Amino acid sequence: MPVKTIEVCLAPPLLTTLDIQPGSILVVADVLRATTTICTAFDYGAARVFPCDDVETAFALKKQGYFVAGERDGNRLDFADAGNSPFEMMHAEIEGRTLVFTTTNGTQAIRQASGLGKTVLGAFVNLPVLVEWLAGQNAGVIVVCAGWKNRFSLEDTLFAGALAESLLAHEGFILQSDEARMALDLYATVRNDLFGYVSQASHARRLEASGQHDSIGYCLTPGKSMALPVHDSGYLVNMRAK
Amino acid sequence: MPVKTIEVCLAPPLLTTLDIQPGSILVVADVLRATTTICTAFDYGAARVFPCDDVETAFALKKQGYFVAGERDGNRLDFADAGNSPFEMMHAEIEGRTLVFTTTNGTQAIRQASGLGKTVLGAFVNLPVLVEWLAGQNAGVIVVCAGWKNRFSLEDTLFAGALAESLLAHEGFILQSDEARMALDLYATVRNDLFGYVSQASHARRLEASGQHDSIGYCLTPGKSMALPVHDSGYLVNMRAK
Repeated sequence: MPVKTIEVCLAPPLLTTLDIQPGSILVVADVLRATTTICTAFDYGAARVFPCDDVETAFALKKQGYFVAGERDGNRLDFADAGNSPFEMMHAEIEGRTLVFTTTNGTQAIRQASGLGKTVLGAFVNLPVLVEWLAGQNAGVIVVCAGWKNRFSLEDTLFAGALAESLLAHEGFILQSDEARMALDLYATVRNDLFGYVSQASHARRLEASGQHDSIGYCLTPGKSMALPVHDSGYLVNMRAK
Repeated sequence: MPVKTIEVCLAPPLLTTLDIQPGSILVVADVLRATTTICTAFDYGAARVFPCDDVETAFALKKQGYFVAGERDGNRLDFADAGNSPFEMMHAEIEGRTLVFTTTNGTQAIRQASGLGKTVLGAFVNLPVLVEWLAGQNAGVIVVCAGWKNRFSLEDTLFAGALAESLLAHEGFILQSDEARMALDLYATVRNDLFGYVSQASHARRLEASGQHDSIGYCLTPGKSMALPVHDSGYLVNMRAK
């Protein structure tokens, strides 16, 4: 079996500094909370998700009748049907629908990554199904941490470390870089109190300040979701859909 | 005493994403090896150092009679008087001279930082004098990790963590961001075997592959240097010079 490299991009502006091999799979992570919430939407039957960069387009699509979820700076858009909490996806009304999703960091990172290679969404909630699927692919993996406003975030880096640890348990995977090594080692250091550690991260404090921290525990729990969102022609669809 | 923030820029492309307060002091770190080597040059009496971005300019200055030190991709420039090893600065011939210095990462990071605020050079070798000086300033500190070709590096991040730890022992300093928290925690995890940990970093392996790893131990030893290089009008000068 050929060597499959594990690479980590710590923040979107660093994507252009990576040496991306053809055929690599990009895993976009915005643990708090875009990729967690999109996974949850698929668990509750969403047909597909349109990741939308700008608020104006999301507003226009809302007027056309789409279900719109989104936030800016952590706060729900006032015209949207839902914010960016996974709990808001746990409703029958999204089953079978196309969701429009726009967030401060996650949707932009998805678009940037999808221009570079096959792109799937990762979060702690879908970590087990993601690892199972990646282990069966003959491809290197690049974790793209969405971060916050183009900056590093602890929670996305820790997800990268958790994913790296799980992949290294499968044959053929090796760490590619200093970034991957750091993510793995930081995760190993704090894994026994992930919630406590992430709670002091800047975005967790941001969510707490706006009264939205009730979802953090859910966002850090592996196995809550069976979804495997993949980018296809501008949309996200669930590879694991029935 | 006002709050003095500790911020870390993990790689030069992220400099523009930081919220830099007026009056902040930028500490550029290229531990392996530019900032270590420049500190050593000042210890051995260099009058000043001209950080030079491009090889062509360095070559022209060599022809004008300057002492030129430099490397590209870790290898000494063939026309230069010295490469990028601190050991090559330990000679009487540099005393009182202006050195021209050009490296793959460090000199560019110095120029970028100096456009944003007061810029000093940091490395493990001058960590004690740097901490003593910063503790006496009424300013926030931003550690700019030079990294490797605009990417993250373990050794510069660990230096940022070591500096953060030392500053937090002084009154008034607080961590500013997730980056600073990660650097501090990673350093705390590996501090007891810094040499072993850094030896597996990508740049240490690069130096080993080119037979230049003999200086790594020196580069990781706090207190070897009494220099405090500061950027002033395009040159680096030693604030601690006699």
